[in-house]
Amino acid sequence: MATVEDRGEAWVIEVMRRQAGPAPAGGVGIGDDAAVLPLPAGRLLVSQDMLVEGVHFRRDWMPPELIGAKAVAANVSDIAAMGGHPLACVVALALPGSLTAAWLETLLAGLARQAREAGAPVVGGDTVGSPAGLVIDIAILGLAREDPVERRGAAPGDCLVVTGALGGSAAGLACFQKGAAWPGAARWEAAALRRHACPPVRVAAGRVLGAYAHAMTDISDAFITEVDALVSPMGLGAAVQQEALPLFAEGPDVARALGQPADRPLAWALFGGEDYELLAAVPPEAWPSVAGQLRAIGVEAHMVGRVEHAPGIRLVQDGRAVPLDRGAGGVGFDHFGAR
Amino acid sequence: MATVEDRGEAWVIEVMRRQAGPAPAGGVGIGDDAAVLPLPAGRLLVSQDMLVEGVHFRRDWMPPELIGAKAVAANVSDIAAMGGHPLACVVALALPGSLTAAWLETLLAGLARQAREAGAPVVGGDTVGSPAGLVIDIAILGLAREDPVERRGAAPGDCLVVTGALGGSAAGLACFQKGAAWPGAARWEAAALRRHACPPVRVAAGRVLGAYAHAMTDISDAFITEVDALVSPMGLGAAVQQEALPLFAEGPDVARALGQPADRPLAWALFGGEDYELLAAVPPEAWPSVAGQLRAIGVEAHMVGRVEHAPGIRLVQDGRAVPLDRGAGGVGFDHFGAR
Repeated sequence: MATVEDRGEAWVIEVMRRQAGPAPAGGVGIGDDAAVLPLPAGRLLVSQDMLVEGVHFRRDWMPPELIGAKAVAANVSDIAAMGGHPLACVVALALPGSLTAAWLETLLAGLARQAREAGAPVVGGDTVGSPAGLVIDIAILGLAREDPVERRGAAPGDCLVVTGALGGSAAGLACFQKGAAWPGAARWEAAALRRHACPPVRVAAGRVLGAYAHAMTDISDAFITEVDALVSPMGLGAAVQQEALPLFAEGPDVARALGQPADRPLAWALFGGEDYELLAAVPPEAWPSVAGQLRAIGVEAHMVGRVEHAPGIRLVQDGRAVPLDRGAGGVGFDHFGAR
Repeated sequence: MATVEDRGEAWVIEVMRRQAGPAPAGGVGIGDDAAVLPLPAGRLLVSQDMLVEGVHFRRDWMPPELIGAKAVAANVSDIAAMGGHPLACVVALALPGSLTAAWLETLLAGLARQAREAGAPVVGGDTVGSPAGLVIDIAILGLAREDPVERRGAAPGDCLVVTGALGGSAAGLACFQKGAAWPGAARWEAAALRRHACPPVRVAAGRVLGAYAHAMTDISDAFITEVDALVSPMGLGAAVQQEALPLFAEGPDVARALGQPADRPLAWALFGGEDYELLAAVPPEAWPSVAGQLRAIGVEAHMVGRVEHAPGIRLVQDGRAVPLDRGAGGVGFDHFGAR
């Protein structure tokens, strides 16, 4: 079977160009020194997300089109978290020479499709050889709202609002780690694997939240870490209501089947990461309207706590503080191993 | 000595933030989901360049500040090659946990300084763990001229114009491969190593050329490859005058000292790559004015050939075609090994 090394760099660029579709009107796409994008006056959003084989994904866990699509979705999530519109992306690939051409083509197809669907077509990038694993690095551009929603800005009394459900990605990761094969045998397993492989794209929800929120971020790291990122820059803290957390529905089934304790779904939600939902600090008077507008576009959102004056993050159950315990083998990690 | 793993991700981000300097006025810099940049109406340039340890650089060859600076310079070169103004960059790093914190800090300092000096401050990025070597991926943004200079557009009769000199980077690489240690012992060795480690930043020259050139690119791959990239999209060819090529001055000394044939400096210039000079197709009537304007900003440029109707690249000496021969162990490569 032909490998990437057999086909060469020009072939990779040609596949990317074919799958990216036409360049933006008035612009220049893949193949020149730089891409050219027409822009209205305003402010630009730029974000970047690098995925390393063996750290962020494994080739034997997910089909290549989903690895590509997830790489884009993780980037789009950052634009959504500012309340912005995705505009375009550039994709750099470090490719092991032994990769089969067919595998790479499928990855690029999934990547390009997700990019087009999210409104951020691939307009350029770079391809280089890798002596080790595959690295996918995407930089995404977006158009900012008049007033982009930063992580800073939360105020005491703000509602902490979360879209969708939490802990599904970590549940899927746990299944993969126990040897589950895509697409998953049991219904709960399939749901968990899918949740890990296919993050939600919350651009529309980000625009709704962006019109009201004091502060917003996406939940790419642990939920608890993201709550802290939202309140600690203002010198504030937060109380999170444990019973209000929207847990991944199949979490209990996954935990049971994997022989894990009954509170593992909660740990996945709090410390799991990669849920790519949005977390926003919304003024309480705006919350009912925000919830209604989100429901109208098919997004369930939950008020899971409050921003408070006292620093630190408190998990509260029935009015009592619950210790924030990662549990044995807990998930949520610093990328270099420090805790 | 403290390692990257000891210090953790937050430390890396803090170092990047400190060295990047303040965020652009009216914008948001490092630390949020996406960077925010104020923009006049117009067109944006986007380019991306990924460097992989062992493929594009070696930690034992160059001091870390130069590895960082070169990564930026390679990206700035792409903006210069469109005749644009650098605006900002984002930097993704895949970091082996065993990297010392001091080494990384020095790399980031060199990277940030070069980015600021080129007018493209670091406004964001990503840092992840790497199970193998170091990967540096930079995406750079620039403001386009009214009429950005693409690779397409060369016309028969255009002068092929090259800034600076060619073959120095490949000469430096040859010295490193023969065991030369930074900063080089002999004068010729030091000059070659420096030329490999510190590419020129041709932004001002790119603006001058951009006002006149029909087509332009930077010489990141082999010179011959770049000439082909400039003329073949138009179905054209080129004649390159061998005696007109501005060869790296210390090339003959390097070749002699390394026991390489006397025509090796020519092979370095033609097939070497990484010179990061500009190559432009300039209408003949504009060439004297372009040369004068470039000289006024301290950049020597040479007319090295002509765009011709007949496809293919011809090397010409004293009016006779010379075979394009890479020679034994020739340089210039496809990134995945295909030739």
